[in-house]
Amino acid sequence: MSTSTAGQDRTTEAFDAVDVIRVKRDGGTLSPEQIDWVIDAYTRGAVAEEQMAALNMAILLNGMDRGEIARWTAAMIASGERMDFSSLSRPTSDKHSTGGVGDKITLPLAPLVAVFGVAVPQLSGRGLGHTGGTLDKLESIPGWRAALTNDEMMAQLENVGAVICQAGSGLAPADRKLYALRDVTGTVEAIPLIASSIMSKKIAEGTGALVLDVKVGSGAFMKDEVAARELARTMVDLGTDAGVRTVALITNMSTPLGLTAGNALEVRESVEVLSGGGPQDVVDLTVALAVEMLAGAGRPTAEDEVRSALSDGRAMDVWRAMITAQGGDVDAVLPVAVEQEHVVAERDGILTGLDALDVGIAAWRLGAGRARKEDPVQAGAGVEIHVKPGERVVAGQPLLTLHTDTPERFARALESARSAVTIEDAAPAAPRDLVITRID
Amino acid sequence: MSTSTAGQDRTTEAFDAVDVIRVKRDGGTLSPEQIDWVIDAYTRGAVAEEQMAALNMAILLNGMDRGEIARWTAAMIASGERMDFSSLSRPTSDKHSTGGVGDKITLPLAPLVAVFGVAVPQLSGRGLGHTGGTLDKLESIPGWRAALTNDEMMAQLENVGAVICQAGSGLAPADRKLYALRDVTGTVEAIPLIASSIMSKKIAEGTGALVLDVKVGSGAFMKDEVAARELARTMVDLGTDAGVRTVALITNMSTPLGLTAGNALEVRESVEVLSGGGPQDVVDLTVALAVEMLAGAGRPTAEDEVRSALSDGRAMDVWRAMITAQGGDVDAVLPVAVEQEHVVAERDGILTGLDALDVGIAAWRLGAGRARKEDPVQAGAGVEIHVKPGERVVAGQPLLTLHTDTPERFARALESARSAVTIEDAAPAAPRDLVITRID
Repeated sequence: MSTSTAGQDRTTEAFDAVDVIRVKRDGGTLSPEQIDWVIDAYTRGAVAEEQMAALNMAILLNGMDRGEIARWTAAMIASGERMDFSSLSRPTSDKHSTGGVGDKITLPLAPLVAVFGVAVPQLSGRGLGHTGGTLDKLESIPGWRAALTNDEMMAQLENVGAVICQAGSGLAPADRKLYALRDVTGTVEAIPLIASSIMSKKIAEGTGALVLDVKVGSGAFMKDEVAARELARTMVDLGTDAGVRTVALITNMSTPLGLTAGNALEVRESVEVLSGGGPQDVVDLTVALAVEMLAGAGRPTAEDEVRSALSDGRAMDVWRAMITAQGGDVDAVLPVAVEQEHVVAERDGILTGLDALDVGIAAWRLGAGRARKEDPVQAGAGVEIHVKPGERVVAGQPLLTLHTDTPERFARALESARSAVTIEDAAPAAPRDLVITRID
Repeated sequence: MSTSTAGQDRTTEAFDAVDVIRVKRDGGTLSPEQIDWVIDAYTRGAVAEEQMAALNMAILLNGMDRGEIARWTAAMIASGERMDFSSLSRPTSDKHSTGGVGDKITLPLAPLVAVFGVAVPQLSGRGLGHTGGTLDKLESIPGWRAALTNDEMMAQLENVGAVICQAGSGLAPADRKLYALRDVTGTVEAIPLIASSIMSKKIAEGTGALVLDVKVGSGAFMKDEVAARELARTMVDLGTDAGVRTVALITNMSTPLGLTAGNALEVRESVEVLSGGGPQDVVDLTVALAVEMLAGAGRPTAEDEVRSALSDGRAMDVWRAMITAQGGDVDAVLPVAVEQEHVVAERDGILTGLDALDVGIAAWRLGAGRARKEDPVQAGAGVEIHVKPGERVVAGQPLLTLHTDTPERFARALESARSAVTIEDAAPAAPRDLVITRID
């Protein structure tokens, strides 16, 4: 039977990984020095993957206090480089969404905010699982490239005002390694680890203001509102403590946002919004987040004024400049999938539910998403939504259209898409607000 | 943000490791099929080290019920071969100790039990940390070898009646892999994992009866009696359910057993016991365990009768035959360390405490133990004890002698050895019994 390491050979390491794991396992508080060491040693490979996995599970089950989370985040930031936008002539403001189905908000939002003289440095990622990735969506635009050098990014922020690009590998490398580990060890769902993962990248990125869109509901990562509030509060505290003006909106993700889930499908819908049209929920959330981003950047702007930039073409002008600056052909025809199938209403009634998770899984199974980060995605695949919850339907009416280039995917996608639909005789008393609450 | 694996490619695996981890993480009960799969897949390498580390931490913090522990143990047994002693003309009985300081009991015990016609197939291990290993002790006898083939082992059991040898790598290979992982991930201290680790090997070994010596106290793995009782009860249940007649004695390990801790030093003390002498506590525990082993094997024998086999030389005859059969020179002079240092009493009084852990760490630091399993040990290194708790001492009187071949080890060993000693004006009211309780 093994025991403590009191007699072990002295190494040059400041701590022993097993001792650090035991502190958290036994419900204790990690010291700042232990946190700094474990993140650094893990990044260097001196703490093994299996040791970090055990520590992550102990953190998931026993928690971390505010001081531990702040230090953990700072240690991840310290594992890499930091960006600096102080040389820009404009203030910066950024948005992060915890991920949902049909969540294309970044696409109209970044150019919309830039209209008002605030620079938006939106470092984004690719999708994994049932939630799409912003870069995957934009890559359906012919010629568009996600990877920019820091100099290209700075120039685009100064000249165009908005950039949506891939985060460089230099920001919080500890987080990248840790996230890949959490993904395979059942430790993604730990609020301290989620909060520090998101905030380490956003703080390292150097934005002056940050608006968090914390989604709650079946299609979101957080299924219940108590957990969503805790995550939002934790992240707002982390941002504030690090000098970033941070607010969070908790928003409803029980049903998909807008009328599309898929890469090119969502770009098309975003362009509709930038043309002054588009689904009401997408427009409303885009405007609500823009108002928060502008206020955070010290440029408070009335909601009506923000809306007018969508209807009068100013946001579209920034969009065209932004896409063009990254090689995208804004006038190209977007890819369309070669095969379609419909889901129709099985009876007359009111569509009372269209489950976000089921729609997201259908889009994923159609080829819009990936199961592993090295998988490709289909530009044209996804789900088009013809009826939103609360609307009346008649038997046989098309509710959803499924798109894919690979028809063998239809069977499992249809299974999920059909289970998304609930039709009843009467509508529920009060549908949920899109923006549930605001935390600052 | 990642999510469930609902859309992943189908593999030939029956389960997804993350799903299994999540069940235990969320406080659920693993199904028999999940347990069989996870142990088999881990042994094959289809479940990664970091995934098993996360699962182990979830088990440590959320526990397993009796059914889960039994299935986990059975799955580890199924990962390898099983031995079969049914062709022997004698019944078999084995002992397992959870490890202590100065615990050389196996050495006199195995030959003593064999005197009464019960075969003792004692598969042992090497030491790690502050507790010594039985094989390390016997390897201080010139010529003695730990590795036997199964045929050699069977022949020795039939002809001599007792064998102490290295467990073959074929028994419960899942446990070997799992133990190495737990050792570096802070997950050794989980009662379900400790119990299944010990019992998988003992059940696979095929003994008919088993006596467990569950040690409690500073020098033991279990520091408190509640945990020791839970471990003992879990193991007795596992053995009983598997058809092995199993009892446990919970014994005191707050002070070292006998007057020596170290390899050759403990062999010398064991030979004294086999010669009818030796320290009272070692003799008493050896006899108590022998009585249990004989009863378990269906050969109930009175304590006096067992004691007489130590004093009349019958146990010594078996010892000589047992050591000789494995190449050992029973008449050889045992190794002696080249350097000695003393710890003396700093004042007059009663020695009220001699802490087992501190003495064990001192012996370890002197070279008797190892920090990593590939490290060598010194045959002559260790601690000799001149005074036991309860005895009167005068200032300057030698209490301990420290032995090593490498005098640079003295400084840290002396530090630990000195902290083992407590001298007070009066003895405590009632010293603890050696055998605290019996669980069957």
